[in-house]
Amino acid sequence: MSTAPGCELCDGPGGEELYRNAQLRVVLVDDAQYPGFCRVIWNAHAREMTDLSAANRTHLMHIVYAVESALRARLSPTKMNLASLGNATPHLHWHVIPRFVDDTHFPQSVWGPRLRDAAPHVLPDDFVASLAGDLAAMLGAPLAD
Amino acid sequence: MSTAPGCELCDGPGGEELYRNAQLRVVLVDDAQYPGFCRVIWNAHAREMTDLSAANRTHLMHIVYAVESALRARLSPTKMNLASLGNATPHLHWHVIPRFVDDTHFPQSVWGPRLRDAAPHVLPDDFVASLAGDLAAMLGAPLAD
Repeated sequence: MSTAPGCELCDGPGGEELYRNAQLRVVLVDDAQYPGFCRVIWNAHAREMTDLSAANRTHLMHIVYAVESALRARLSPTKMNLASLGNATPHLHWHVIPRFVDDTHFPQSVWGPRLRDAAPHVLPDDFVASLAGDLAAMLGAPLAD
Repeated sequence: MSTAPGCELCDGPGGEELYRNAQLRVVLVDDAQYPGFCRVIWNAHAREMTDLSAANRTHLMHIVYAVESALRARLSPTKMNLASLGNATPHLHWHVIPRFVDDTHFPQSVWGPRLRDAAPHVLPDDFVASLAGDLAAMLGAPLAD
Protein backbone atom coordinates (compact mmCIF):
# COMPACT_ATOMS: atom_id res chain seq x y z
CA MET A 1 0.00 0.00 0.00
CA SER A 2 1.27 3.45 -0.89
CA THR A 3 2.40 5.53 2.09
CA ALA A 4 4.15 8.91 2.42
CA PRO A 5 6.83 9.76 4.99
CA GLY A 6 5.64 12.10 7.73
CA CYS A 7 1.95 11.91 6.76
CA GLU A 8 -0.19 11.82 9.88
CA LEU A 9 -2.92 9.80 8.17
CA CYS A 10 -0.37 7.23 6.98
CA ASP A 11 1.21 7.09 10.43
CA GLY A 12 -1.90 7.14 12.66
CA PRO A 13 -5.58 6.23 12.63
CA GLY A 14 -6.85 9.86 12.63
CA GLY A 15 -9.53 9.25 15.27
CA GLU A 16 -11.43 6.54 17.07
CA GLU A 17 -12.08 3.77 14.61
CA LEU A 18 -15.71 2.88 13.84
CA TYR A 19 -15.24 0.80 10.71
CA ARG A 20 -12.35 -0.43 8.57
CA ASN A 21 -11.96 -2.43 5.42
CA ALA A 22 -9.06 -3.03 3.05
CA GLN A 23 -9.50 0.36 1.31
CA LEU A 24 -10.54 2.80 4.02
CA ARG A 25 -11.53 3.48 7.59
CA VAL A 26 -14.20 5.56 9.36
CA VAL A 27 -13.17 7.37 12.52
CA LEU A 28 -14.92 9.59 15.04
CA VAL A 29 -13.18 12.91 15.67
CA ASP A 30 -12.99 13.78 19.35
CA ASP A 31 -14.34 17.34 19.28
CA ALA A 32 -17.00 18.34 21.81
CA GLN A 33 -17.97 21.30 19.62
CA TYR A 34 -19.02 18.95 16.83
CA PRO A 35 -20.63 15.82 18.23
CA GLY A 36 -20.58 13.00 15.72
CA PHE A 37 -17.90 14.59 13.49
CA CYS A 38 -16.58 11.62 11.48
CA ARG A 39 -13.87 11.21 8.88
CA VAL A 40 -13.67 8.63 6.14
CA ILE A 41 -10.00 8.11 5.40
CA TRP A 42 -8.57 6.30 2.39
CA ASN A 43 -5.96 3.88 3.73
CA ALA A 44 -3.38 4.33 0.95
CA HIS A 45 -1.75 7.72 0.47
CA ALA A 46 -3.78 9.18 -2.41
CA ARG A 47 -4.14 12.91 -2.93
CA GLU A 48 -7.27 13.69 -4.93
CA MET A 49 -10.55 11.93 -5.70
CA THR A 50 -9.56 11.92 -9.37
CA ASP A 51 -6.36 10.05 -8.47
CA LEU A 52 -8.54 7.06 -7.49
CA SER A 53 -10.06 4.67 -10.00
CA ALA A 54 -13.75 5.21 -10.71
CA ALA A 55 -14.56 2.03 -8.77
CA ASN A 56 -12.59 3.23 -5.75
CA ARG A 57 -14.23 6.65 -5.86
CA THR A 58 -17.64 4.99 -5.91
CA HIS A 59 -16.69 2.77 -2.98
CA LEU A 60 -15.37 5.69 -0.94
CA MET A 61 -18.51 7.77 -1.49
CA HIS A 62 -20.71 4.75 -0.71
CA ILE A 63 -19.11 4.74 2.73
CA VAL A 64 -19.43 8.53 3.10
CA TYR A 65 -23.17 8.24 2.39
CA ALA A 66 -23.50 5.39 4.89
CA VAL A 67 -21.87 7.56 7.56
CA GLU A 68 -24.14 10.48 6.64
CA SER A 69 -27.20 8.23 6.88
CA ALA A 70 -26.18 6.81 10.24
CA LEU A 71 -25.44 10.27 11.67
CA ARG A 72 -28.72 11.70 10.40
CA ALA A 73 -30.65 8.81 11.94
CA ARG A 74 -28.90 9.09 15.33
CA LEU A 75 -28.51 12.88 15.69
CA SER A 76 -31.10 14.60 13.45
CA PRO A 77 -28.70 17.44 12.57
CA THR A 78 -29.84 20.74 11.09
CA LYS A 79 -27.56 20.09 8.12
CA MET A 80 -24.86 17.66 7.06
CA ASN A 81 -21.54 19.03 5.81
CA LEU A 82 -19.30 16.94 3.55
CA ALA A 83 -15.81 18.08 2.58
CA SER A 84 -12.56 16.75 1.17
CA LEU A 85 -9.98 19.51 1.50
CA GLY A 86 -6.57 18.13 2.50
CA ASN A 87 -4.64 21.37 2.18
CA ALA A 88 -2.71 20.71 5.39
CA THR A 89 -2.78 16.90 5.13
CA PRO A 90 -2.94 15.92 1.46
CA HIS A 91 -4.02 12.34 2.17
CA LEU A 92 -7.51 11.71 0.85
CA HIS A 93 -10.11 11.98 3.61
CA TRP A 94 -13.70 13.14 3.89
CA HIS A 95 -15.10 15.18 6.74
CA VAL A 96 -18.69 14.12 7.51
CA ILE A 97 -19.99 16.69 9.96
CA PRO A 98 -23.44 16.90 11.54
CA ARG A 99 -24.23 20.59 12.05
CA PHE A 100 -26.70 22.09 14.49
CA VAL A 101 -28.31 25.51 14.39
CA ASP A 102 -26.87 26.29 17.82
CA ASP A 103 -23.36 24.93 17.31
CA THR A 104 -20.40 27.31 17.72
CA HIS A 105 -20.08 28.15 14.01
CA PHE A 106 -23.45 27.58 12.30
CA PRO A 107 -24.18 28.69 9.55
CA GLN A 108 -20.48 29.28 8.99
CA SER A 109 -18.35 26.30 8.06
CA VAL A 110 -16.51 24.64 10.93
CA TRP A 111 -13.36 26.26 9.49
CA GLY A 112 -14.88 29.74 9.60
CA PRO A 113 -15.30 32.32 12.36
CA ARG A 114 -16.67 31.16 15.70
CA LEU A 115 -20.04 32.85 16.21
CA ARG A 116 -21.08 31.83 19.71
CA ASP A 117 -20.31 29.73 22.72
CA ALA A 118 -22.14 26.47 22.83
CA ALA A 119 -22.49 23.97 25.60
CA PRO A 120 -20.56 20.83 24.68
CA HIS A 121 -23.06 18.38 23.30
CA VAL A 122 -22.57 15.17 25.23
CA LEU A 123 -23.12 12.03 23.22
CA PRO A 124 -24.59 8.96 24.90
CA ASP A 125 -22.01 6.63 26.43
CA ASP A 126 -22.82 4.01 23.85
CA PHE A 127 -22.61 6.36 20.85
CA VAL A 128 -19.38 4.95 19.42
CA ALA A 129 -20.57 1.37 19.76
CA SER A 130 -23.98 2.28 18.35
CA LEU A 131 -22.61 4.10 15.33
CA ALA A 132 -20.08 1.33 14.69
CA GLY A 133 -22.99 -1.10 14.85
CA ASP A 134 -24.99 0.97 12.37
CA LEU A 135 -22.09 0.94 9.93
CA ALA A 136 -21.48 -2.78 10.37
CA ALA A 137 -25.16 -3.43 9.70
CA MET A 138 -25.14 -1.27 6.56
CA LEU A 139 -21.73 -2.25 5.23
CA GLY A 140 -20.91 -5.65 6.65
CA ALA A 141 -18.84 -6.31 9.73
CA PRO A 142 -15.55 -4.42 9.97
CA LEU A 143 -12.32 -6.35 9.61
CA ALA A 144 -11.09 -7.97 12.79
CA ASP A 145 -7.81 -6.61 14.16
CA MET B 1 -39.24 19.86 -10.36
CA SER B 2 -39.15 20.57 -6.64
CA THR B 3 -38.41 24.20 -5.76
CA ALA B 4 -38.42 26.16 -2.50
CA PRO B 5 -39.66 29.74 -2.08
CA GLY B 6 -36.87 32.26 -1.54
CA CYS B 7 -34.05 29.83 -2.35
CA GLU B 8 -31.36 31.61 -4.32
CA LEU B 9 -30.34 28.43 -6.14
CA CYS B 10 -33.94 27.74 -7.13
CA ASP B 11 -34.39 31.35 -8.25
CA GLY B 12 -31.06 31.99 -10.00
CA PRO B 13 -28.26 30.18 -11.82
CA GLY B 14 -25.65 30.65 -9.05
CA GLY B 15 -22.84 31.64 -11.42
CA GLU B 16 -21.83 31.64 -15.06
CA GLU B 17 -23.14 28.47 -16.62
CA LEU B 18 -20.59 26.05 -18.10
CA TYR B 19 -22.75 22.96 -18.46
CA ARG B 20 -26.35 21.98 -17.80
CA ASN B 21 -28.41 18.85 -18.12
CA ALA B 22 -31.83 17.84 -16.81
CA GLN B 23 -30.53 17.09 -13.30
CA LEU B 24 -27.83 19.68 -12.61
CA ARG B 25 -25.70 22.54 -13.78
CA VAL B 26 -22.04 23.55 -13.49
CA VAL B 27 -21.27 27.21 -12.94
CA LEU B 28 -18.12 29.28 -12.57
CA VAL B 29 -18.06 31.48 -9.47
CA ASP B 30 -16.82 34.99 -10.20
CA ASP B 31 -14.18 35.35 -7.48
CA ALA B 32 -10.75 36.69 -8.43
CA GLN B 33 -9.30 35.22 -5.23
CA TYR B 34 -10.16 31.72 -6.39
CA PRO B 35 -9.69 31.37 -10.14
CA GLY B 36 -11.62 28.45 -11.51
CA PHE B 37 -13.90 28.08 -8.45
CA CYS B 38 -16.84 26.07 -9.80
CA ARG B 39 -20.07 24.85 -8.32
CA VAL B 40 -22.11 21.84 -9.34
CA ILE B 41 -25.71 22.60 -8.43
CA TRP B 42 -28.55 20.08 -8.35
CA ASN B 43 -31.44 21.67 -10.26
CA ALA B 44 -34.25 20.47 -7.99
CA HIS B 45 -34.39 21.67 -4.40
CA ALA B 46 -32.84 18.76 -2.51
CA ARG B 47 -31.12 19.19 0.83
CA GLU B 48 -28.65 16.37 1.45
CA MET B 49 -26.79 13.84 -0.67
CA THR B 50 -28.67 11.09 1.13
CA ASP B 51 -31.96 12.67 0.03
CA LEU B 52 -31.07 11.77 -3.56
CA SER B 53 -31.45 8.30 -5.02
CA ALA B 54 -28.24 6.30 -5.31
CA ALA B 55 -28.32 6.74 -9.09
CA ASN B 56 -28.67 10.51 -8.76
CA ARG B 57 -25.85 10.68 -6.21
CA THR B 58 -23.62 8.75 -8.59
CA HIS B 59 -24.53 11.05 -11.46
CA LEU B 60 -23.87 14.20 -9.41
CA MET B 61 -20.45 12.99 -8.28
CA HIS B 62 -19.59 11.89 -11.83
CA ILE B 63 -20.00 15.54 -12.83
CA VAL B 64 -18.04 16.78 -9.78
CA TYR B 65 -15.13 14.52 -10.80
CA ALA B 66 -15.33 15.75 -14.40
CA VAL B 67 -15.08 19.34 -13.16
CA GLU B 68 -12.18 18.41 -10.91
CA SER B 69 -10.39 16.70 -13.82
CA ALA B 70 -10.92 19.64 -16.15
CA LEU B 71 -9.71 22.15 -13.55
CA ARG B 72 -6.64 20.09 -12.71
CA ALA B 73 -5.74 19.80 -16.39
CA ARG B 74 -6.17 23.54 -17.08
CA LEU B 75 -4.81 25.08 -13.85
CA SER B 76 -2.50 22.53 -12.15
CA PRO B 77 -3.64 23.57 -8.66
CA THR B 78 -1.69 22.74 -5.52
CA LYS B 79 -4.79 20.93 -4.19
CA MET B 80 -8.42 20.47 -5.08
CA ASN B 81 -11.06 21.17 -2.44
CA LEU B 82 -14.52 19.57 -2.66
CA ALA B 83 -17.32 20.50 -0.29
CA SER B 84 -21.08 20.28 0.05
CA LEU B 85 -22.07 22.42 3.03
CA GLY B 86 -25.31 24.32 2.38
CA ASN B 87 -25.70 25.78 5.86
CA ALA B 88 -26.72 29.17 4.49
CA THR B 89 -28.34 27.85 1.30
CA PRO B 90 -29.63 24.34 1.93
CA HIS B 91 -30.02 23.49 -1.75
CA LEU B 92 -27.64 20.72 -2.74
CA HIS B 93 -24.50 22.08 -4.39
CA TRP B 94 -20.83 21.15 -4.51
CA HIS B 95 -17.97 23.60 -4.33
CA VAL B 96 -15.11 22.46 -6.58
CA ILE B 97 -12.21 24.75 -5.76
CA PRO B 98 -8.70 24.74 -7.21
CA ARG B 99 -6.33 25.88 -4.46
CA PHE B 100 -2.88 27.36 -4.85
CA VAL B 101 -0.08 27.56 -2.32
CA ASP B 102 -0.02 31.36 -2.66
CA ASP B 103 -3.78 32.00 -2.63
CA THR B 104 -5.22 34.25 0.08
CA HIS B 105 -6.20 31.42 2.43
CA PHE B 106 -4.02 28.37 1.70
CA PRO B 107 -3.67 26.00 3.59
CA GLN B 108 -6.80 27.21 5.39
CA SER B 109 -10.15 26.48 3.81
CA VAL B 110 -11.61 29.27 1.68
CA TRP B 111 -14.06 29.80 4.58
CA GLY B 112 -11.26 30.22 7.11
CA PRO B 113 -9.05 33.16 8.08
CA ARG B 114 -7.42 35.14 5.30
CA LEU B 115 -3.65 34.65 5.59
CA ARG B 116 -2.18 36.95 2.96
CA ASP B 117 -2.88 39.31 0.13
CA ALA B 118 -2.62 37.72 -3.26
CA ALA B 119 -2.59 39.29 -6.68
CA PRO B 120 -5.82 38.42 -8.46
CA HIS B 121 -5.08 35.49 -10.71
CA VAL B 122 -6.31 36.45 -14.16
CA LEU B 123 -7.71 33.60 -16.18
CA PRO B 124 -7.25 33.56 -19.95
CA ASP B 125 -10.03 35.31 -21.88
CA ASP B 126 -11.14 32.01 -23.30
CA PHE B 127 -11.20 30.17 -19.95
CA VAL B 128 -14.98 29.89 -19.67
CA ALA B 129 -15.35 28.68 -23.23
CA SER B 130 -12.42 26.28 -22.84
CA LEU B 131 -13.71 24.76 -19.61
CA ALA B 132 -17.23 24.50 -21.02
CA GLY B 133 -15.68 22.74 -24.02
CA ASP B 134 -13.79 20.34 -21.75
CA LEU B 135 -17.00 19.44 -19.94
CA ALA B 136 -18.96 19.04 -23.17
CA ALA B 137 -16.24 16.72 -24.48
CA MET B 138 -16.25 14.63 -21.29
CA LEU B 139 -19.97 14.65 -20.62
CA GLY B 140 -21.71 15.28 -23.92
CA ALA B 141 -22.91 18.61 -25.17
CA PRO B 142 -24.90 20.73 -22.70
CA LEU B 143 -28.59 21.22 -23.30
CA ALA B 144 -29.45 24.03 -25.68
CA ASP B 145 -31.29 26.97 -24.16
